[in-house]
Amino acid sequence: MDDIYSRLLEGDRRAVARLITMVENGDPAAKEPIRRLHEHTGNAHIVGITGAPGSGKSTLVSSLTKVLRGRDLSVGIIAIDPTSPFTGGAILGDRIRMQDLATDPGVFIRSMGTRGALGGLSVATNDAVNILDAFGKDLVIVETVGAGQIEVEIVKLAHTSVVVTMPGGGDEIQAIKAGIMEIGDVFVVNKADREDSGRTYTEILMMLEMSERRDGRMPPLVRTVATTGEGVDDLAQVILDHHKYLKHEGLLEKKAKERIVAELLEIINMRVGKTVLRALQDDPEMVDLMGKLVETREIDPHSGASMVIRHLLKKGEG
Amino acid sequence: MDDIYSRLLEGDRRAVARLITMVENGDPAAKEPIRRLHEHTGNAHIVGITGAPGSGKSTLVSSLTKVLRGRDLSVGIIAIDPTSPFTGGAILGDRIRMQDLATDPGVFIRSMGTRGALGGLSVATNDAVNILDAFGKDLVIVETVGAGQIEVEIVKLAHTSVVVTMPGGGDEIQAIKAGIMEIGDVFVVNKADREDSGRTYTEILMMLEMSERRDGRMPPLVRTVATTGEGVDDLAQVILDHHKYLKHEGLLEKKAKERIVAELLEIINMRVGKTVLRALQDDPEMVDLMGKLVETREIDPHSGASMVIRHLLKKGEG
Repeated sequence: MDDIYSRLLEGDRRAVARLITMVENGDPAAKEPIRRLHEHTGNAHIVGITGAPGSGKSTLVSSLTKVLRGRDLSVGIIAIDPTSPFTGGAILGDRIRMQDLATDPGVFIRSMGTRGALGGLSVATNDAVNILDAFGKDLVIVETVGAGQIEVEIVKLAHTSVVVTMPGGGDEIQAIKAGIMEIGDVFVVNKADREDSGRTYTEILMMLEMSERRDGRMPPLVRTVATTGEGVDDLAQVILDHHKYLKHEGLLEKKAKERIVAELLEIINMRVGKTVLRALQDDPEMVDLMGKLVETREIDPHSGASMVIRHLLKKGEG
Repeated sequence: MDDIYSRLLEGDRRAVARLITMVENGDPAAKEPIRRLHEHTGNAHIVGITGAPGSGKSTLVSSLTKVLRGRDLSVGIIAIDPTSPFTGGAILGDRIRMQDLATDPGVFIRSMGTRGALGGLSVATNDAVNILDAFGKDLVIVETVGAGQIEVEIVKLAHTSVVVTMPGGGDEIQAIKAGIMEIGDVFVVNKADREDSGRTYTEILMMLEMSERRDGRMPPLVRTVATTGEGVDDLAQVILDHHKYLKHEGLLEKKAKERIVAELLEIINMRVGKTVLRALQDDPEMVDLMGKLVETREIDPHSGASMVIRHLLKKGEG
């Protein structure tokens, strides 16, 4: 494990890949290299990119990465894939699109599945971001699908959050209105070569103008066509400008602090949850018995849960 | 609170609305009526409906409900809305579309926000399902947006899971392939009047034929146009048939049992998480101090989390 740490700092990509896999699997052997890498973190610009399925996020990330590479910036990409709760099969299509980037030594791409524990993914994603940060990437892009709670949590932790939309999605605009408006630092209308893109652009612009944001800043709205690269140069500029803005206003430090506290809380939650789960697995009869009592309507689920917790506490004391 | 319980069983809709609000807010006064209602649960057919934003889910749920009402079945609807993590603003558009149902005494519609704790939503949703079940609804429909982990968790707990797709979404089909394929009992291609719907239909059909399902059953694929009601009668039939199939094969009891154990585990997780959060809120200096040590790179987040947990345990002992 000492080995993986040194190899990673020497620029060995396989060491990076292996450590992220270990983190993803919850391998306890990852702890030591992660601990030692920590002092090398804190330099990367962390960019979160989210949007509905079909908005062309992955193509945009790929196109954006090419532009950033043209400016001699190195890029790490963590793509959060929706994964089957049963088989763990990941989406390959998006990754294949990124294949032309995979041969560039200045780019490191990694998919992570949403399989497994809820808290687990956020923690593993943070660890992976920190690994790519320590690996020396100038930007680390975290790409998530959709606007679920986990996606929002992940994107919230970025320095710069980019929300990707596409023309036509009425429901989508409402989702932006409700959920993502306040967390986006940069907004994109992708597929801007479509006929109805003007209307979507205007609608989002109006929404942005009306919304009261915590930082009092009007976030830029960029039109892109990810497949041709149109507008992607502007997008790159706007993302880099946001980082400069954060630095200049003394907000980068504040964001970094928030990120660390959130990271701490997530790790604490995950670990406590795991401890409880382990205790329950050690005592399957207890859960079975409660299930039966609830099923026969003798007790309700909340009372059943209380009894299980009391039982676990008693065992812990004994 | 005794009052809310009796009023609910007497058919008072305001009592239902109030109890669901209490559950959503984590009001401890909800515990007693929920406990007493439990013996009246277990009769409703629980239907989960999920799909990407823009697939027309809400219109379909509304259309489906009308068909079910035509068959003299009463319907409860719980619509999970993506809600802002900051302001808690909910999406109103979808709900407005359902307005024509709101005056029908045989229908009860309720939105629930995804705001608040991760585990909290699943627990509150289950409680709301149980409330509508005890209220005597023949079917309880839980409608969720997207295919995030929480949505999947919620839909998994239904007796019948319906996955709604629409023509054209290449990414969406991949998402189905990866994540939702195995949990769907019924598949729908909505907006089937669109030109490219045939291709989507064939693609999903092929996927369903190729996939190995746990239950060895080939799930039906239905074409609908929610806005006109086309195909919705078929959809209603297929959903009701699935319930009959579960009953006939002795699988309904198995599903009910799984649902109860999952419900128990979720309540346990939520309660333990809340206890930890409360302990942390009582001790903000500790979290602050750890944050600073992590920020200055003196310790890494995982070691910081360990120190906080040790500190909490020590305090708990003292």
